[in-house]
Amino acid sequence: MPSSPSADGLSAEEPEAPGTAAYRRAGVDVRRGYAAVERIRALAARTHDGRVLSGIGGFAALYRLPAGGEAEPVLVAAADGAGTKALLAARTGRHEGIGVDVVAMNVNDIVAQGGRPLFFLDYIAMGRIVPETVEALVRGMADGCREAGCALVGGETAEMPDVYAEGTYDVAGFAVGVLEDGVRKRRPVAAGDVLVGLPSTGIHANGFSLVRRILEAHRPNLEAPFEGGTLLEALLRPTAIYVPWLKEAGRDPAVKAMAHITGGGFYENVPRVLPPGLRAVVRFGTWPVPEVFHWLRAHPLPGSPPMAWPEMAGVFNIGLGMIVIVAPEGVDRVQAAIARAGGRAFVVGEVVSGERGVAFVP
Amino acid sequence: MPSSPSADGLSAEEPEAPGTAAYRRAGVDVRRGYAAVERIRALAARTHDGRVLSGIGGFAALYRLPAGGEAEPVLVAAADGAGTKALLAARTGRHEGIGVDVVAMNVNDIVAQGGRPLFFLDYIAMGRIVPETVEALVRGMADGCREAGCALVGGETAEMPDVYAEGTYDVAGFAVGVLEDGVRKRRPVAAGDVLVGLPSTGIHANGFSLVRRILEAHRPNLEAPFEGGTLLEALLRPTAIYVPWLKEAGRDPAVKAMAHITGGGFYENVPRVLPPGLRAVVRFGTWPVPEVFHWLRAHPLPGSPPMAWPEMAGVFNIGLGMIVIVAPEGVDRVQAAIARAGGRAFVVGEVVSGERGVAFVP
Repeated sequence: MPSSPSADGLSAEEPEAPGTAAYRRAGVDVRRGYAAVERIRALAARTHDGRVLSGIGGFAALYRLPAGGEAEPVLVAAADGAGTKALLAARTGRHEGIGVDVVAMNVNDIVAQGGRPLFFLDYIAMGRIVPETVEALVRGMADGCREAGCALVGGETAEMPDVYAEGTYDVAGFAVGVLEDGVRKRRPVAAGDVLVGLPSTGIHANGFSLVRRILEAHRPNLEAPFEGGTLLEALLRPTAIYVPWLKEAGRDPAVKAMAHITGGGFYENVPRVLPPGLRAVVRFGTWPVPEVFHWLRAHPLPGSPPMAWPEMAGVFNIGLGMIVIVAPEGVDRVQAAIARAGGRAFVVGEVVSGERGVAFVP
Repeated sequence: MPSSPSADGLSAEEPEAPGTAAYRRAGVDVRRGYAAVERIRALAARTHDGRVLSGIGGFAALYRLPAGGEAEPVLVAAADGAGTKALLAARTGRHEGIGVDVVAMNVNDIVAQGGRPLFFLDYIAMGRIVPETVEALVRGMADGCREAGCALVGGETAEMPDVYAEGTYDVAGFAVGVLEDGVRKRRPVAAGDVLVGLPSTGIHANGFSLVRRILEAHRPNLEAPFEGGTLLEALLRPTAIYVPWLKEAGRDPAVKAMAHITGGGFYENVPRVLPPGLRAVVRFGTWPVPEVFHWLRAHPLPGSPPMAWPEMAGVFNIGLGMIVIVAPEGVDRVQAAIARAGGRAFVVGEVVSGERGVAFVP
């Protein structure tokens, strides 16, 4: 069998080379790595097209960039993890969605910045490599990559005894895209621009340190029926991938900026795309707030009152995973393009003059 | 102050937005994140040239690809971490070298695959963000990036209470490069080709689960004098970055392949670049073995005999961090080019017919 680049930076050769036995004593069973690699390889291959090149070695992935309009194309790169959502997933054995989450966190950052995702690499670190868990995570990543139209080209699965407790893991990822033509010439955000919000699927992958404290304090039945599924399913619902929805809409000349609502909620993310002297006004009630946020509000930490919605919006997306800032004349067109792509978009507010920041109004 | 892309995916805006107080109760103090970001930003900026583009948002990094010979350039991407070396570094407060390690692990993979590193992103996960520790890690990364000639364009610093114990962390990174002209046309490795080895600085960043078990078993004085420094310094010496040494030599038409000696040592990494029916013969004694490997051999795990060198070579690099496979007629030229770049290279063996694998001979 010719040596082929492994999907995840590990080789399946030499299953019992000298040194392996000694190394296994130290807590790292290299053979568990091989089993995981075989599973990963097949899953990753499903995301590949002719741009993923094979070759000898496999120390790194090769990807042929599509020819674009520019002699010097601009690459867009993001790195992000799934946060402590992975802890809840690990504890309940629901790994696959975490794979989707880590792709979504990265490709949504790329699309917010005006890029089209091309490829993704993962980093999985575990106390002890459990091939079935790695496979579930990578299956989720492969699904996410297919949805985002990008290739899962490689990564690293690290067995780290003493860093991670058995059964826990951390997952991070890294995506590279290419800047869409024309994005560098976007017009600046101005007073009067419209905030178009894209619905989230739920909590996405931020705020889980608070979610887990709430769960510890209230100990709800995670298998209780909730919104047609269970509470656990609602809590862990994978992050929406906005790439297909924004494929056409994101190139509309009326689109001026996008904010991916992640850690720190609206207050951290919306002001990043506002010039000084401009303020985002978000009209509460203009979009559907997923039931899981009502549940979280109804279960405050002991001794605390229920969080007000503006406070919730500093931790959670409260139903809007992406804010697209659009010049007024393009709003109908952008909403129609998103609808054609199978998505939904709500007019949730506007940009006004004022101190840079976000205000929620009824 | 205009909103600028943050070096590490965090914003320094809105230090006490609604929600922050609640979130800090859950174990995540967003303000510690801000302090780290300010330090990171300045360090990262030192690695930037005109190809790192700034813009609104900062959800992802923008990098303008240099124009090359091809309309569709081939990107080379790698993901890797520092492994459990980070545990020893965290325990002893020597963080900076780990930043170098994580860059080195990735850029050496890129150069082994024939690429020239362009940019790097990091992922740091900690139980509690300690800005000084983040700063030390990122200072090391910035140093490593400068040595490798690439830009530190972004990353993620995640505070993950309950995943990482206080004082421990995990560090991973991602690098993207562009394939050097001509590399895709390299000739196949053949019997008679020469193994040219590049000296390692020490253990690099693989095998540390075993190293840590050895330290636990023998409890040596880590501050004891060792090779002009201390034992701890020898154990943690940062991974060599081979990019400058191979800048000219790697493009030599006599170079057929390179193997970066990482996890699994020689047996895992050298066969990756060997076609079936070819075997690497490594002549022990043709390169200097760093003192730290002699020390490790002399301190076996309790109940085990000292590891033989061929067994050591399945866990550690035992002095050679990169094997370059060179057609015989080009060996002098490749060695001279490495020497001109300030490096050293030893003829350490050859490729012979036989079962694919690695054999050590005296």
